[in-house]
Amino acid sequence: MLLLSNLPFKTQKSMPSGSDNRGTGLLLQAGFIRMTLAGAYNYTTLGLKTLRNIENIVREEMDAIGSSEILMTALGARENWEKTERWDTVDILFKLPSAEGREYALNPTHEEVVTPLIGEFIQSYKDLENCSVYQIQNKFRNEKRAKSGLLRGREFLMKDMYSFHRTQEELDAYFEVAHSAYDRVFERLGLSDSTHYTFASGGDFSKYSYEFQTEVGIGEDEIFICTKCDQAHNKEIIDENHFVCAECAHTECEKKIVSEVANIFKLGSRFSDAFGLKYQDADGQTKNIVMGCYGIGISRLMGLIAEKFADEKWLIWPENVAPFWYEIIVIGDHLEVAKTLAKKLESEWKSVLIDDRNTGFGQKAGDADLFGIPNRIILSDKTIEKGGYELKKRTESEGIIVSM
Amino acid sequence: MLLLSNLPFKTQKSMPSGSDNRGTGLLLQAGFIRMTLAGAYNYTTLGLKTLRNIENIVREEMDAIGSSEILMTALGARENWEKTERWDTVDILFKLPSAEGREYALNPTHEEVVTPLIGEFIQSYKDLENCSVYQIQNKFRNEKRAKSGLLRGREFLMKDMYSFHRTQEELDAYFEVAHSAYDRVFERLGLSDSTHYTFASGGDFSKYSYEFQTEVGIGEDEIFICTKCDQAHNKEIIDENHFVCAECAHTECEKKIVSEVANIFKLGSRFSDAFGLKYQDADGQTKNIVMGCYGIGISRLMGLIAEKFADEKWLIWPENVAPFWYEIIVIGDHLEVAKTLAKKLESEWKSVLIDDRNTGFGQKAGDADLFGIPNRIILSDKTIEKGGYELKKRTESEGIIVSM
Repeated sequence: MLLLSNLPFKTQKSMPSGSDNRGTGLLLQAGFIRMTLAGAYNYTTLGLKTLRNIENIVREEMDAIGSSEILMTALGARENWEKTERWDTVDILFKLPSAEGREYALNPTHEEVVTPLIGEFIQSYKDLENCSVYQIQNKFRNEKRAKSGLLRGREFLMKDMYSFHRTQEELDAYFEVAHSAYDRVFERLGLSDSTHYTFASGGDFSKYSYEFQTEVGIGEDEIFICTKCDQAHNKEIIDENHFVCAECAHTECEKKIVSEVANIFKLGSRFSDAFGLKYQDADGQTKNIVMGCYGIGISRLMGLIAEKFADEKWLIWPENVAPFWYEIIVIGDHLEVAKTLAKKLESEWKSVLIDDRNTGFGQKAGDADLFGIPNRIILSDKTIEKGGYELKKRTESEGIIVSM
Repeated sequence: MLLLSNLPFKTQKSMPSGSDNRGTGLLLQAGFIRMTLAGAYNYTTLGLKTLRNIENIVREEMDAIGSSEILMTALGARENWEKTERWDTVDILFKLPSAEGREYALNPTHEEVVTPLIGEFIQSYKDLENCSVYQIQNKFRNEKRAKSGLLRGREFLMKDMYSFHRTQEELDAYFEVAHSAYDRVFERLGLSDSTHYTFASGGDFSKYSYEFQTEVGIGEDEIFICTKCDQAHNKEIIDENHFVCAECAHTECEKKIVSEVANIFKLGSRFSDAFGLKYQDADGQTKNIVMGCYGIGISRLMGLIAEKFADEKWLIWPENVAPFWYEIIVIGDHLEVAKTLAKKLESEWKSVLIDDRNTGFGQKAGDADLFGIPNRIILSDKTIEKGGYELKKRTESEGIIVSM
């Protein structure tokens, strides 16, 4: 349990300016985040707990498909970015002058790190039977403008996974496994119904790349959904005047404004070739390796979940994501009772925030509204007279009295 | 439990070059880490688990003294570094040119972020009753040379805590609380006996700063320990020809080569003044705020623990730090039995690695030696014949048979 009196952070009466989306605005107002510079946010304690909950859901689903967690460097070697011919072509690449008179990259993505890293460990076809690694780590993009709060950052938290395969068929099979894991992530985050698996323009080695685009009423992307088979298409791959579904050839579609939350790519041998990754097959032949990559924007998801589930006034977190499952508002001299109740709830794996501050009910109830914790408990002389504590879901207007 | 067959990493027969210390060399050989560039290391799965264990011990002890975890940005605003007059004076500060034609700092420490951040939430003396925050986050130093592996990084993991106080007395009191928390960290990491609380040269606002210096046989620092009262002094604050103990005025001392693992500073109002942090006292007067800061090098600790506990050949992790508490080597068709045993051990909160690879005993035993996991279990036809599994501590030469 956490005692709110222990936190130095505060809510604000009104939504601060500085973000063009409501989710980020509400997070600022609730004191979950604060800006260092445009596109780079600090997470206070409640914000960090929320971020970690999203991160852990993603982690569990990547672990479940047998990918191994690692942690790579934010610094990148210029030579490696030159080997892939991306040093001069990736326009959002931060280039960092160093004291030894060189330049490093500040990685916006990690093909240039993971490919030589895994290359050190691969010799034979046996080493590629199940070769997938992921990390959850800060990325950097040298954006000219960064006005969208958590949705478009100069510094942001990503999960990026990379898989290495002997054949296109093995890549294709793993790609579907990863796709299913992503579906489970969005299910657990409460975003299944609003997230569309979308065909987008491909890289060098496949016709399409695949995006997960979420409807939250805002976004930088437009998708076109076939009214017959529901397949979504990014604007960039269709002719708006003559829509033809890439899946079923139907010609009617619905247009939606969406936000990208994840993407998965078949990279083919674009990067493995650049670093000379090969393996020896069972018959002794040297062969190429093909790769897949799979990203999810963790901090971006936090901003979008804030945006999507907020009511007309305040944040409302889904229970899986909320910084705490319960908030107990204590009025009067009942802190010890509150702690006993919190311990009981925690024994059922429900996390608890106790508002034990020396302030009035109005302030506590107002802050609880801003925090958006899904289940609120009030413990006061009045509720104890009525027979226990008052329990109210954040999405309901009336509470019920529950006996201790 | 983790199945070793699932990991794409491998050990190496001999220690690779590229590090001037044995700890980092052994970590490279065991496949726990890999370099991106000098001073920037990737953590593979076993390396990351080790790092996280150290991190969690530090986290628990900071939580235990009521500090609140937050997460700050790696990017820093140049204006803030100019406000503290450190933009031009901190020689290891990375300066990052941005697309908007400005420069950002890549933070090596976070006074320039945390001071204005906390400043937003402080008005009254009540807000300073218990105001301490910490983060566990990557830091960057623009080092001319970086040859010491995990011990001196361009990118490295730190815990940094900052406290804010109304008076020097309150700062002094919290400083001792933090000092005790640090002692508990080093106790749990198995470094108590070899870590010296050392007087070092102060900042602007106190006579000394305080370092935690660990004896592991290597290091960049020299300390002088009073033979009477045991107080350690950094070389920089004494006259080597005329030693006088700063604590008891004794004049005999012992010299040791050590490595710095942590430091704690009283910052006074150096940073709070730079950002105009003030509070209103109970009597309505506006007063200055004083600060303390408290660092621990997490990735550096991993390198030093590797160095300290290794025997003449290989890594040996203390149980609290080890990537796994147990490693089960399975020989023959006993994987299901191994999994049952692992579940039993995990129900006692002991983590388990199972070597289920399709290789011989020699390879498995050799890799287990390299990994340095403190408790090894062998499960084979032979041990089952003898009545169960063989259990051997990494530090012992003979195992014992334990019945299932």
